[in-house]
Amino acid sequence: MSSTLTLAEMLAPVQPGLERMRAILAAELTESGPVGERVESLARFRGKELRAAMVLLAGQAVGNEHPELPQVAAVLELIHLATLVHDDVLDGADLRRNVPSVHAQWDEQTAILLGDMLYSRAFHLSTRLRSVLAAQVLSKSAQRICAGEMEQAALRYRFDLPQERYEAIAGAKTAELYAAACELGARYQGDPALEGPPASPPVGWALELREFGREVGLAFQIIDDVLDLEGQEEQVGKRVGNDVEDGKVTLPVLHVYASASGPVQAAIREAYQGSLPAGANRLEVLRAACDLGPGIHYAKGRAQDLLQNALRRAHGLPDSAAKNTLVRIAEYILRRQR
Amino acid sequence: MSSTLTLAEMLAPVQPGLERMRAILAAELTESGPVGERVESLARFRGKELRAAMVLLAGQAVGNEHPELPQVAAVLELIHLATLVHDDVLDGADLRRNVPSVHAQWDEQTAILLGDMLYSRAFHLSTRLRSVLAAQVLSKSAQRICAGEMEQAALRYRFDLPQERYEAIAGAKTAELYAAACELGARYQGDPALEGPPASPPVGWALELREFGREVGLAFQIIDDVLDLEGQEEQVGKRVGNDVEDGKVTLPVLHVYASASGPVQAAIREAYQGSLPAGANRLEVLRAACDLGPGIHYAKGRAQDLLQNALRRAHGLPDSAAKNTLVRIAEYILRRQR
Repeated sequence: MSSTLTLAEMLAPVQPGLERMRAILAAELTESGPVGERVESLARFRGKELRAAMVLLAGQAVGNEHPELPQVAAVLELIHLATLVHDDVLDGADLRRNVPSVHAQWDEQTAILLGDMLYSRAFHLSTRLRSVLAAQVLSKSAQRICAGEMEQAALRYRFDLPQERYEAIAGAKTAELYAAACELGARYQGDPALEGPPASPPVGWALELREFGREVGLAFQIIDDVLDLEGQEEQVGKRVGNDVEDGKVTLPVLHVYASASGPVQAAIREAYQGSLPAGANRLEVLRAACDLGPGIHYAKGRAQDLLQNALRRAHGLPDSAAKNTLVRIAEYILRRQR
Repeated sequence: MSSTLTLAEMLAPVQPGLERMRAILAAELTESGPVGERVESLARFRGKELRAAMVLLAGQAVGNEHPELPQVAAVLELIHLATLVHDDVLDGADLRRNVPSVHAQWDEQTAILLGDMLYSRAFHLSTRLRSVLAAQVLSKSAQRICAGEMEQAALRYRFDLPQERYEAIAGAKTAELYAAACELGARYQGDPALEGPPASPPVGWALELREFGREVGLAFQIIDDVLDLEGQEEQVGKRVGNDVEDGKVTLPVLHVYASASGPVQAAIREAYQGSLPAGANRLEVLRAACDLGPGIHYAKGRAQDLLQNALRRAHGLPDSAAKNTLVRIAEYILRRQR
């Protein structure tokens, strides 16, 4: 039944909060002068706002409807936007959601500076909240995201990466903001006496929901990595094989490599790093070098385990429309094909 | 007399605070794992720490020796470091203080991510202070710095730029952190009841010292722009003529251009933008196209006026060793030749 719901329908319980979040975000992306059109051009990258929705859903699910939660959600979306703008520079991606990326429309300098400005603006917005909790949790999250991306770059072509390390990196990249969104939704009270000191770890529902967000985000990233190896371009909606091209050794490949014979291991390394005939596709070469099937099966199983854990946590919440939506989001990711 | 003092001697009154600032900074630039060596490599860019010193000097000058001021100063130095790392990417500069810049040692990706991490780390450190004032003032400063740099890039080759606009851009780039340093030194009390709400403008000594910092920083940048046109490489210690190459029309040129005849204006534009024989030097061509003398004289006069204003403010402070140092810093900039 739930599979026929659109994302907008699923998010119905938090639409009023999302509307307020959008108004705050729109004000933050408005500016006069020559910088203005650059800042305002960012509005075109507004996406599904799933991170913002998670703040509000986690809040509702535990009975927290603090009036500042939409502002907390806007801070999260601004940080997410900053990472996207810089990511496109890092990846040399000229398109983002089918429109030119910032560095493609303006130039790389503008993209770097706009990203920096978005980070600073996000932090400034977070310091205007009544409590410092969101500022502290999210400035930590931003550090973890950058560290994860740097670590990923430093560990390219590492075929012996332990799964734990792979998950830490994938988690920093994708799960961290989902985890922070859920934690803040459940915990933010605008008052340290109620929410606990910011530097302390989350407890109770805030901890449960933080873990829910982390598991959902990590599963999402693992499935993303699977689709990049397994998917057909038409179905996934974007180029596949990017990770092989970029030297990112993801969970399915790590799993296959670990139990492969010496010659197959050598062929896998060659597919990633060897010199290829012009126009050859590294993913095709990799598929010829080994059977990716068991690795893909293993990675999907790991994603399912994570989502089952997440679902168990969500089912433990008191009954509410928001709880149902959190369950549906986890189920939705379990089924995703693109 | 004071001209014979070294900077370290001038800063003697705040050495204990600077020592504590350095310990905090060192802890923030320590990290394990593959990201660790990248983070730790940043220590080599530690400079004169003049911004940190300004926090402590402004504090002492008004009798504020709040124990958290060294941490406020460390936040400022981290933000400054973040801007340097990204600036080198923007400018394609391979050397910084005679050692390879981050993107030269690692790569551009690392430089972008390390800069982002430094911003986030600075904000995180600022949220661990007892009051939110520093977090709020400095996240605003960081936005102004990025906006100023973007505006400068957008207004290249604009020979009709009003002086006010030029100063706003030069001020955002260089004066903003000095102004914030002085404001925070005078104002930060770790308690909103004593320091006033963070979103409110500074008053009293905090306002005077903020203006002192702005004037000193702006004068510093104007003299920098003069040296780039007038200086000899051996004396300035770096290449000159960079602004002409980069299309940055600075105060001396704006002044000359405004009162020049049509043909001279055309020759100035040609020096900046025309096609030149290979190996030709745009600064040489500009010097041949017009007499820069009156523009340089005018810009130096403007820098002097700013510093006289700054000195007047400093002289108004109650007598103290810190006050004497603030006066000497302004005098030192008035005399600078490199």
